[in-house]
Amino acid sequence: DSSLKVFSLNSNPELANEIATHIGTNLGKCTVSKFSDGEVQINLEESVRGCDVYVVQSTCAPVNQHIMELLIMIDALKRASAKSINIVMPYYGYARQDRKARSREPIAAKLVADLIEKAGANRVITLDLHAPQIQGFFDIPIDHLQGVPILSSYFEQKNLDDVIVVSPDHGGVTRARKMADRLKAPIGIIDKRRPKPNVAEIMNIIGNIEGKTAILIDDIIDTAGTITLAANALIENGAKEVYACCTHPVLSGPAIERIDNSKIKELVITDSIPLPDEKFSAKITALSVAPLIGEAIIRVHEMQSVSILFD
Amino acid sequence: DSSLKVFSLNSNPELANEIATHIGTNLGKCTVSKFSDGEVQINLEESVRGCDVYVVQSTCAPVNQHIMELLIMIDALKRASAKSINIVMPYYGYARQDRKARSREPIAAKLVADLIEKAGANRVITLDLHAPQIQGFFDIPIDHLQGVPILSSYFEQKNLDDVIVVSPDHGGVTRARKMADRLKAPIGIIDKRRPKPNVAEIMNIIGNIEGKTAILIDDIIDTAGTITLAANALIENGAKEVYACCTHPVLSGPAIERIDNSKIKELVITDSIPLPDEKFSAKITALSVAPLIGEAIIRVHEMQSVSILFD
Ligand SMILES: Nc1ncnc2c1ncn2[C@@H]1O[C@H](COP(=O)(O)O)[C@@H](O)[C@H]1O
Ligand SMILES: Nc1ncnc2c1ncn2[C@@H]1O[C@H](COP(=O)(O)O)[C@@H](O)[C@H]1O
Repeated sequence: DSSLKVFSLNSNPELANEIATHIGTNLGKCTVSKFSDGEVQINLEESVRGCDVYVVQSTCAPVNQHIMELLIMIDALKRASAKSINIVMPYYGYARQDRKARSREPIAAKLVADLIEKAGANRVITLDLHAPQIQGFFDIPIDHLQGVPILSSYFEQKNLDDVIVVSPDHGGVTRARKMADRLKAPIGIIDKRRPKPNVAEIMNIIGNIEGKTAILIDDIIDTAGTITLAANALIENGAKEVYACCTHPVLSGPAIERIDNSKIKELVITDSIPLPDEKFSAKITALSVAPLIGEAIIRVHEMQSVSILFD
Repeated sequence: DSSLKVFSLNSNPELANEIATHIGTNLGKCTVSKFSDGEVQINLEESVRGCDVYVVQSTCAPVNQHIMELLIMIDALKRASAKSINIVMPYYGYARQDRKARSREPIAAKLVADLIEKAGANRVITLDLHAPQIQGFFDIPIDHLQGVPILSSYFEQKNLDDVIVVSPDHGGVTRARKMADRLKAPIGIIDKRRPKPNVAEIMNIIGNIEGKTAILIDDIIDTAGTITLAANALIENGAKEVYACCTHPVLSGPAIERIDNSKIKELVITDSIPLPDEKFSAKITALSVAPLIGEAIIRVHEMQSVSILFD
């Protein structure tokens, strides 16, 4: 049985530390810094020869730097004779470029998968991919964890009355269904349509929300336009109160301002992406995915299935 | 004969434009921007089906962003059925990480070569690689252009008296030799040694510089520590005046301040990396590599050797 080492890069050192603690180990020693011209400089400060190495890195902003840190780290580990290089990517950047929506577009999510493999990774552990099809972009094993159980447990403990789980768009209905099953609640869908080009969108709500406590669920909240418009539409159409939740708090641009000014009572997120201080909002509650990921690493290392973690 | 298209990414649009002008064409239309969260967004705005495409991108700072732009562009061109994808990289970032100088180091220069190939490039045209061995990191054809002829011509036209070409270290002697041949001048070498650890370096000058006009030549000037110390040592040891030149003006951190405060009379660079306004120095003269690269593209497209351009 070869020894397990966990390394952190720069995107999410706190989460990496909690994961290591969960596993009962310390983070491996390495320096990940920059040269004067901005090039990434990585120094492994302990041997990894013959080890099963787990590298924790969310490819959140600054996404290009975090991707290059990851690739250069994989290169260093490979050349230092690690036995296996396992990439723990709680947030998978570029996941929304997962298809050619228009002609002559790149498919950056596939490119990133190719780059990780080419650099020399042997396995990827990730969480709530924007499209589960991204699993098929890899030729190496990929473990796809789910945030729904964590988010659902939090709401279960709140003992809210008369809940309805609402998907902010058609793409997220499966996710809403999973949460609704756990909360034994019905589901609703925000059905946006644009009747003609250059005419404002109509927010049609499918499902009976009158007097109910709505929980909006999405995988990513980025600029928070979709989720805050949805929340306001729910209140205007008779919902008693609106909670929102997501796995990946990208929260770029006007997101925090929009959330603070919206009808959302509380926004529940995970720490797949760390929130810097300047993104503070009293409305936000962050749940940790460290126990989930720690458990997954233990199971992978012991060659057991991880699917039990969310069945 | 298929049609040639030149596209520019964000690192060096001015140079790309000059290259297109030299070839007698216009830059291809594409938008290379960022989403709100910082992810690169590329839209090709004209067809490239069946075309020989040349993409101009120096992977200078912000290096990780410029690399990802390049890789995503290659992906988009590949999926848009370009006949060939030719990468014009006047400056090759990460070239100094070209070997394991210590154990457990990455070899990022090889990684970058692998990434470019994996993304789908068919050929690379580059200029003064930090180590010519980087050519061997590629399995696709690579054209390696040289800046020495351009830099030498400039000094030839100055008609300086009693010139000596000086390499600032042992690694650059071949380059200094090439320039000296063109200027029909002798060469000198700055021979740095550290007698004991933690004792100041001794600058020993090999070659007779007494009363001479010294021209220091290097491939990259980054923080300008080496070159300014060398220039001052030359003056202290009797050189009449000191010019300096390089192909790639990285000029990070304290570089401009050091150059301005040094004994360097004039620093001659190329536009392989553009100088932003905040790096202005009255001592700097920039020469364009656009005619050289334009010529190389024409010759590659007509399937002729490019080596004639610097023999
Ligand atoms: N980083 C990003 N920020 C905002 N939009 C994006 C980003 N990446 C991709 N997209 C766009 O989002 C759409 C895909 O999102 P979706 O329909 O939710 O899968 C596509 O039209 C993409 O062009
Ligand atoms: N971007 C960079 N800035 C400064 N030093 C670097 C950079 N990349 C690599 N190096 C270091 O430069 C040395 C190689 O330079 P050289 O000996 O001139 O080939 C190695 O020790 C590298 O660790």
